[in-house]
Amino acid sequence: MDLNQELTTRATRFNASLRRYLQNGEPKILYDAARHLPLAGGKRLRPVIAMIACESVCGNSDDSIPFCMSLELLHNFTLVHDDIMDQSQLRRSMPSVHVKFGEPTAIMAGDLLFAKSFEVMHMLKVDDATFKKLDYLLVNCIKQICEGQQLDMGFEQQNHVAEQEYVEMIRKKTAVLFSLATEGGAIIGGGTPNQINDLKTYGTALGIAFQIWDDYLDISSNEQTLGKNIGNDIRNGKKTLIAVHALHTASGEYKKLLDKSFGNKHATETEVKEVFSLFQQLGSIEYARKTALEYNTQAKNALSSLSSSAAKQILQELADYVMKREK
Amino acid sequence: MDLNQELTTRATRFNASLRRYLQNGEPKILYDAARHLPLAGGKRLRPVIAMIACESVCGNSDDSIPFCMSLELLHNFTLVHDDIMDQSQLRRSMPSVHVKFGEPTAIMAGDLLFAKSFEVMHMLKVDDATFKKLDYLLVNCIKQICEGQQLDMGFEQQNHVAEQEYVEMIRKKTAVLFSLATEGGAIIGGGTPNQINDLKTYGTALGIAFQIWDDYLDISSNEQTLGKNIGNDIRNGKKTLIAVHALHTASGEYKKLLDKSFGNKHATETEVKEVFSLFQQLGSIEYARKTALEYNTQAKNALSSLSSSAAKQILQELADYVMKREK
Repeated sequence: MDLNQELTTRATRFNASLRRYLQNGEPKILYDAARHLPLAGGKRLRPVIAMIACESVCGNSDDSIPFCMSLELLHNFTLVHDDIMDQSQLRRSMPSVHVKFGEPTAIMAGDLLFAKSFEVMHMLKVDDATFKKLDYLLVNCIKQICEGQQLDMGFEQQNHVAEQEYVEMIRKKTAVLFSLATEGGAIIGGGTPNQINDLKTYGTALGIAFQIWDDYLDISSNEQTLGKNIGNDIRNGKKTLIAVHALHTASGEYKKLLDKSFGNKHATETEVKEVFSLFQQLGSIEYARKTALEYNTQAKNALSSLSSSAAKQILQELADYVMKREK
Repeated sequence: MDLNQELTTRATRFNASLRRYLQNGEPKILYDAARHLPLAGGKRLRPVIAMIACESVCGNSDDSIPFCMSLELLHNFTLVHDDIMDQSQLRRSMPSVHVKFGEPTAIMAGDLLFAKSFEVMHMLKVDDATFKKLDYLLVNCIKQICEGQQLDMGFEQQNHVAEQEYVEMIRKKTAVLFSLATEGGAIIGGGTPNQINDLKTYGTALGIAFQIWDDYLDISSNEQTLGKNIGNDIRNGKKTLIAVHALHTASGEYKKLLDKSFGNKHATETEVKEVFSLFQQLGSIEYARKTALEYNTQAKNALSSLSSSAAKQILQELADYVMKREK
């Protein structure tokens, strides 16, 4: 099986629907701003995972496409607002929405994408009770994403973050959207309660692995260059799993160094490099890699009760694929 | 009938439910930010109107309360984001959410209120088909509010705005929430399609009258002092119905004055006063007052086919009440 091809064919079907759905509207600038990110492409990981989850319980993934659009619009709404909050200038190698359209229009474009993630659910051909259940899952997902994002911001001001707190934060901020994808796909595909539950577990573990791997890649892929982002993350005291591990493990001189430089907005280049070396010496980078792999294994194990199918195989390989991607 | 008492008793019942519903949550700062505005009181005009619309078709307004909470949360979500967009420092005589909690948390608090306006709908005791219909109306309302808000911002850069365009803007920005209140209240109350439609018409006309009156009050209540807001509105070229009328009516020297000073960020105090005097001389302020009253009459006329009831009488008097309020 060629995993990349399996993902691409589904993403292509999804993209055709999304382009049809995200028509222009009036006022044009608002719709241009709202369409800017979602029509700029991307791997469409969340919708594609939902389609495959639907297939893995013998559903027809075409039936899930409106739900998949909802996931992608929701994801893009959070990106638009996150970029404003973080003052990020770039997204997918393009100016972020607030840079291109101004902050007021970007706030509203995010709100419009939010509204459209509920609107598109009305294109689902499911009975009214299922619609209501999916609507509730969607609401609950968004609430948790807001909570996770706020926790993440709060952690920057906090000296001590337990690993459990960190995992809870990324579960809310990142993993709930993956678990909504697999749970919702399985519901639409007509899965049994057990299948739905197993696929939800898969999505959660995959999402946690995905986020830890993201932070791991951020730092490990930049070991040579030690790019600007890492410097900023260290200066802002960003609590990745790597930082959480280092802060727990360090003692003596190491602890003093972290106290002085980690989360210090005015840390020099040299101090940033010292913190980075410390992350390596304490084994924190390796610890994050291993933890991501553990969640990855959890994800694959959750699939064990599903009957064999092409879709099941794709989900299994996808878990490894998520760990192989590079920035 | 004591209209004020009728409104207050319903607002009190509504407030008790809202306070119960808007419990604190984690992270606390996010929930504090989200609760800041909705728990600060206010007339609760939109939810109270929905309750009365429900009663006017012989429904029990207790059944409508979750829907009423959705309206109020939605209204508050738009206020939180609007205040960021407009950089407004005060709201209901308190620091606005972004001033008190910072912009990132305020953006997220708005998003959380948005999510909760959908969440609370799940407390409605209606059949699944009705739930789905109301969910769709809610989505459609939010989309139009976003469009209306963007139109309003766009008008500031536009020299020419037709009265029809202006009315369409405030219909979307303000009136859709009133018409959702009356339409939704009537649906939950079990109204006939005709009753639902008439109440929707009432809500739309009432909302348009409300917004024109708001702009009228802004300017007429400040004739003596010519407060800061009016100066800002004139300098920003804000297209109220008063400004739209003046820009259409003015010619010759008057037109030159408007071209020079209206929408001129650097207009002096004297120039602002000249524009204001021109609004008076051209009859633009009086025109706005009369137009608001016409929509007010439209609203009352829409009720004619409803059978007599205490609720119907309240809705009739409410239309006049909205025109009597002061800033």
